[in-house]
Amino acid sequence: MGMIGGGPGAFIGAVHRMAANLDGDIELVSGCFSSDPKKSKQAGKELHLSALRVYASYKDMIRLEKNLPDNERIDFVSIVTPNHLHFEPAKLALENGFHVVLDKPMTLTLKEANQLKEIALKNDRLICLTHTYTGYPMIKQARQMIKKGLFGTIRRIVVEYPQGWLSTALENTEQKQAAWRTDPKRSGIAGAMGDIGTHAFNLAEYVSGLSTTKICADLNTVVKGRKLDDDGAVLLKFDNGASGVLFATQIAAGEENNIKLRVYGEKGGIEWKQEDANSLLVKWLSKPTEIYRTGNDYLNSFAKHNTRTPAGHPEGYLEAFANHYRNFALTLKAKLNNRKAKAESLDFPNADDGIRGMAFIENVVASSKAKEKWSDFKV
Amino acid sequence: MGMIGGGPGAFIGAVHRMAANLDGDIELVSGCFSSDPKKSKQAGKELHLSALRVYASYKDMIRLEKNLPDNERIDFVSIVTPNHLHFEPAKLALENGFHVVLDKPMTLTLKEANQLKEIALKNDRLICLTHTYTGYPMIKQARQMIKKGLFGTIRRIVVEYPQGWLSTALENTEQKQAAWRTDPKRSGIAGAMGDIGTHAFNLAEYVSGLSTTKICADLNTVVKGRKLDDDGAVLLKFDNGASGVLFATQIAAGEENNIKLRVYGEKGGIEWKQEDANSLLVKWLSKPTEIYRTGNDYLNSFAKHNTRTPAGHPEGYLEAFANHYRNFALTLKAKLNNRKAKAESLDFPNADDGIRGMAFIENVVASSKAKEKWSDFKV
Amino acid sequence: MGMIGGGPGAFIGAVHRMAANLDGDIELVSGCFSSDPKKSKQAGKELHLSALRVYASYKDMIRLEKNLPDNERIDFVSIVTPNHLHFEPAKLALENGFHVVLDKPMTLTLKEANQLKEIALKNDRLICLTHTYTGYPMIKQARQMIKKGLFGTIRRIVVEYPQGWLSTALENTEQKQAAWRTDPKRSGIAGAMGDIGTHAFNLAEYVSGLSTTKICADLNTVVKGRKLDDDGAVLLKFDNGASGVLFATQIAAGEENNIKLRVYGEKGGIEWKQEDANSLLVKWLSKPTEIYRTGNDYLNSFAKHNTRTPAGHPEGYLEAFANHYRNFALTLKAKLNNRKAKAESLDFPNADDGIRGMAFIENVVASSKAKEKWSDFKV
Amino acid sequence: MGMIGGGPGAFIGAVHRMAANLDGDIELVSGCFSSDPKKSKQAGKELHLSALRVYASYKDMIRLEKNLPDNERIDFVSIVTPNHLHFEPAKLALENGFHVVLDKPMTLTLKEANQLKEIALKNDRLICLTHTYTGYPMIKQARQMIKKGLFGTIRRIVVEYPQGWLSTALENTEQKQAAWRTDPKRSGIAGAMGDIGTHAFNLAEYVSGLSTTKICADLNTVVKGRKLDDDGAVLLKFDNGASGVLFATQIAAGEENNIKLRVYGEKGGIEWKQEDANSLLVKWLSKPTEIYRTGNDYLNSFAKHNTRTPAGHPEGYLEAFANHYRNFALTLKAKLNNRKAKAESLDFPNADDGIRGMAFIENVVASSKAKEKWSDFKV
Repeated sequence: MGMIGGGPGAFIGAVHRMAANLDGDIELVSGCFSSDPKKSKQAGKELHLSALRVYASYKDMIRLEKNLPDNERIDFVSIVTPNHLHFEPAKLALENGFHVVLDKPMTLTLKEANQLKEIALKNDRLICLTHTYTGYPMIKQARQMIKKGLFGTIRRIVVEYPQGWLSTALENTEQKQAAWRTDPKRSGIAGAMGDIGTHAFNLAEYVSGLSTTKICADLNTVVKGRKLDDDGAVLLKFDNGASGVLFATQIAAGEENNIKLRVYGEKGGIEWKQEDANSLLVKWLSKPTEIYRTGNDYLNSFAKHNTRTPAGHPEGYLEAFANHYRNFALTLKAKLNNRKAKAESLDFPNADDGIRGMAFIENVVASSKAKEKWSDFKV
Repeated sequence: MGMIGGGPGAFIGAVHRMAANLDGDIELVSGCFSSDPKKSKQAGKELHLSALRVYASYKDMIRLEKNLPDNERIDFVSIVTPNHLHFEPAKLALENGFHVVLDKPMTLTLKEANQLKEIALKNDRLICLTHTYTGYPMIKQARQMIKKGLFGTIRRIVVEYPQGWLSTALENTEQKQAAWRTDPKRSGIAGAMGDIGTHAFNLAEYVSGLSTTKICADLNTVVKGRKLDDDGAVLLKFDNGASGVLFATQIAAGEENNIKLRVYGEKGGIEWKQEDANSLLVKWLSKPTEIYRTGNDYLNSFAKHNTRTPAGHPEGYLEAFANHYRNFALTLKAKLNNRKAKAESLDFPNADDGIRGMAFIENVVASSKAKEKWSDFKV
Repeated sequence: MGMIGGGPGAFIGAVHRMAANLDGDIELVSGCFSSDPKKSKQAGKELHLSALRVYASYKDMIRLEKNLPDNERIDFVSIVTPNHLHFEPAKLALENGFHVVLDKPMTLTLKEANQLKEIALKNDRLICLTHTYTGYPMIKQARQMIKKGLFGTIRRIVVEYPQGWLSTALENTEQKQAAWRTDPKRSGIAGAMGDIGTHAFNLAEYVSGLSTTKICADLNTVVKGRKLDDDGAVLLKFDNGASGVLFATQIAAGEENNIKLRVYGEKGGIEWKQEDANSLLVKWLSKPTEIYRTGNDYLNSFAKHNTRTPAGHPEGYLEAFANHYRNFALTLKAKLNNRKAKAESLDFPNADDGIRGMAFIENVVASSKAKEKWSDFKV
Repeated sequence: MGMIGGGPGAFIGAVHRMAANLDGDIELVSGCFSSDPKKSKQAGKELHLSALRVYASYKDMIRLEKNLPDNERIDFVSIVTPNHLHFEPAKLALENGFHVVLDKPMTLTLKEANQLKEIALKNDRLICLTHTYTGYPMIKQARQMIKKGLFGTIRRIVVEYPQGWLSTALENTEQKQAAWRTDPKRSGIAGAMGDIGTHAFNLAEYVSGLSTTKICADLNTVVKGRKLDDDGAVLLKFDNGASGVLFATQIAAGEENNIKLRVYGEKGGIEWKQEDANSLLVKWLSKPTEIYRTGNDYLNSFAKHNTRTPAGHPEGYLEAFANHYRNFALTLKAKLNNRKAKAESLDFPNADDGIRGMAFIENVVASSKAKEKWSDFKV
């Protein structure tokens, strides 16, 4: 694995590295960690990489890695730059034979996302998009239970992602994370909705197995002077007729990262939240609520496949993240060996998720400006 | 106290009686418990009332009670009939000098509610509307903290009331509660939104101290054949510019009565839910979340005034309900003695709350049918 | 009902009154609320009692009430004085034909408790002992599930009652509750163990259906100058071979009244705590934990019988307390009508519980002083 | 790093590897994974190790690694075998210049533990003992708060470790984990107390900063035919006079791994449990309880140093485990560079913790057999 981005001051680069390291099956061997070659060198050194494989630009990296012998060359690149720097490196990597792990949202625009999928298809390369939350074992459990129809037809979905860290104009301080996330040039047309609304949207569609058909959005910029939305709520309609509410805010002072999902069907439903990630509440119309817990024998194969520790030893964000890396790696390994990956391994977020995420951003921004209540969800 | 309604098969009548009994300051001495005189008699007998004061009709009751000597006559009537039977008895009672406790929603229409307020004013009578949830001590605590400005300007409100009991067509069984609540003739133009959406709305406005100015509603009838909404979500704007989400559903299979409120300001906010009614989470931008708990010395006078047991001994729904009765009674006693009631006693839901609740129903139904996103909230 | 004790400054008297009032089937009509006749008068007035039935001494009260005609006279007395004033009034009441509700612990000594039971038997009178926590519906549910053998043989019990209110020498202030509870003359030979340890002990035996056979106690007086234990832990053995841990402390700063019980059998077990009194966690060896909740149809008849509000509307301490009053009253009514009370009504704490509670106090104090690890539990 | 043990069927070996991998600063390069050379080879292969560095015996491993050049040779060995195979390999490693990471309990006997410490001292080598739970950031936070005296003198400690997985005679199935843990030859003289009681004991002493002086133990073998204790409770006295309760059981059907600690001082205290590992409840005598959460700015340097993700993104068991590896590695690196490690890095469990753990096992077993209540805690 090689990494593009993730140098000093970055948050998500380190997360990707820890996630990739965890299982001992992926090795970081090359990288271009900053647009500043000096900083890239320094980062590479701190990461114990050979200086030969720390590059001054991502273009160099892809060109030079490509020239390495098969058994030395990296298999894939992990792109962990701000949103505006996803498309070009991903495109170059895919066109030069590298598989790609990409942080979300996939690109700066829906158009780019669609293009990237095309390029990947044409070059027969894999894309993995790190929508962290679908990596949690209890989320896998929930999806399969709904898929099996245990709750009957799904009727109501509530998904939320409240954060408080942008309650003040943090972007005017030295905080790099806040700066690029509130800058339309680097972040795209949406702020909170792009950064965390996409996670909520992805989680809801992934677990319910439903597709959004119509939305009604209300985006707000609460902190004065901010250029993008930092708060918003969306009403949704799904393809089976179910209704939804999604809200995502970065000005909910005192909130951390408690993304939460509730899905209700005819006979029962599920509730899950990141702050208690190893529990899945399973509710029933006329039976006691059950608490499904990570690591137990009674779980389905998807939940078990994505678990490392026995029940009661909590797994967290990094493990969920690592599940995507591991499943991507298992799928890649199967591909390299001309085997068919098993269903559990194939279950990682891919270009299609990325495209729906970009569509969410574009639709939600358009709907927020519209006078009509409902807008069709266009992909 | 006399009661109108609340005979066999009724749920809320018994709640009113227990709430009124709890503190030993209110005595039920008369009633008309059913439109069927036999049933009314029987109910009165079971409630240990003198047969002389159990009436065949509410008209009889008001007429005959009025003729009793001052020191025997009831001071107020408690009206606990279905919505379509609120206005007439309340009007009659008020016009004949009785104060009134009324179950919510106040009336069948906004017009009736406005009229009732007028009548009460003209006759100098009190109206208490039993919006249960604002009777909880921790809700009193929250309101006062926000009022004092501890969290700065309020920016985002999330209020929800999920229930699951109408997940099936229960109204087609013998269930009386389900039958009248889903019948437009008895319930009015809204189903879930009238029954529980009004509670959520009232709670949000009460705690935040804000008034709704615009709404965008999406009401659904999920169970086939049902005549009123049983599920819905509403986007809101408040008079200070804050945004809100409200959802209320009776088809969330597996949910009980977990009404929950979150209010976020610039510096922090609060979270409260009925399932953990004695805790108030107080969140701060950069300090640990605090758990305020009923019964502690550090609480404000409004919370303390509405508490009966020491910290850690949970108070529940009946105590919250009883707080409204107690505060109404204290206010009434002050009035009868020409004293000014203290602020803590005056803090019970009244006709103004009832009017806003009826306005909520009418606005939300209209907005749900509108093509435009935003409708002004008209009272 | 008549009340002995419970005047100004008392805590538990008001609780008894609210509990008795709640269901509207018990009426407080007489009382002797204080050893000071003036204070007693005043309290009676505030409680809206006829001055004729507010007595200067409990002896007067029992003598004079006895002389009243059958249909006016009280049926029972409720004794809510400090521990040293339980025996004499209870004895007199029983011997004069009154049934008795008694606050726990039953008496000052085990001997007195045994005597009182004898007297009640001889006079065919009922004793109800208000061990509040066994009045909770979920506790009823738990007991019946264990009784049915759903969890197999019980193996391990953990019961705890942590409070923090005596973390400082509160008894040296004006706090009346603290003063008598830490005074051996009024409280008896145990402090925390008598006050709350007995509750924990009663809860454990009630729910498990087991009897303690051996104990090993460690009682401590943590706050300097205090005369009784304010903290302690006990190891227990039960008659089926199960082991237990009990701890009760009043110096756990920051704790309120979170009495909690866990019982583990071969196949599963239960967990309940007062802070979440309407939930019962039911754990299984190889199935998800279930959350049983007050007010649901799936509960057993004992849980349902002791519930007033629909699922999700929390019931609390006063309702649990009221359940004992209600069941006592139902049993009394059956007795007065020569009917057999149903099992659910008979299920209130009685003299046998009181005797075991007093035995607990005497055994635990003796064991704490013993050098040997295990002492037989003697009744 | 080289590993001894942790081949097929082992649980804790994989945990050690993931923990060591996580931060990318430790590389597994050699190992002897099984006493069966074939299995060892196979495991090494699956772990992507060079076949040259996968050894047939731990003796070979230490001898041959020692002969490698400085910059190739491993710095330390990680010993993850059952308890009876700790001492010999650790001794050999230390005597040959390797630092050692050792799973707990440290050895089979207290004598061995003392010897091992001596050997490490003589050879100037580090020992890290993986008492997982002290690696959690909120545990670090708690320890420092108590150390600073924020809660005054500590008075009462409650620590518990309930598990349910040995509720049946699992050791009679193929379950390797159950087999060795219940076998005195491989596990030592204690079962549950050695396996998880030591964790509870270590956590209590670590957080409180206190040392146990006296104990009173009650160990039980609940499952028929089992050779070691599977359940037990202990009363404790600490060197400042505080009292404690510890219980550890493996027959609490339905429990997972919810180790929990409560410490109460004069002014407040803390509560932490693994199931909600990222929260620390901080209780106060007369202020609201606070919820300290991993990843926040308001935490102390020890908590922050042991955290990888932003607040709200849960860290779990593997991260806690990895903290010990990271701190050990940082200390080792400082040592290799003749620098002084900073206090936060030095804060990992070492030989002294291991010795106290072995003392706990020996004392607790002896006390359980004693007739006297209290036994001095001897090290």
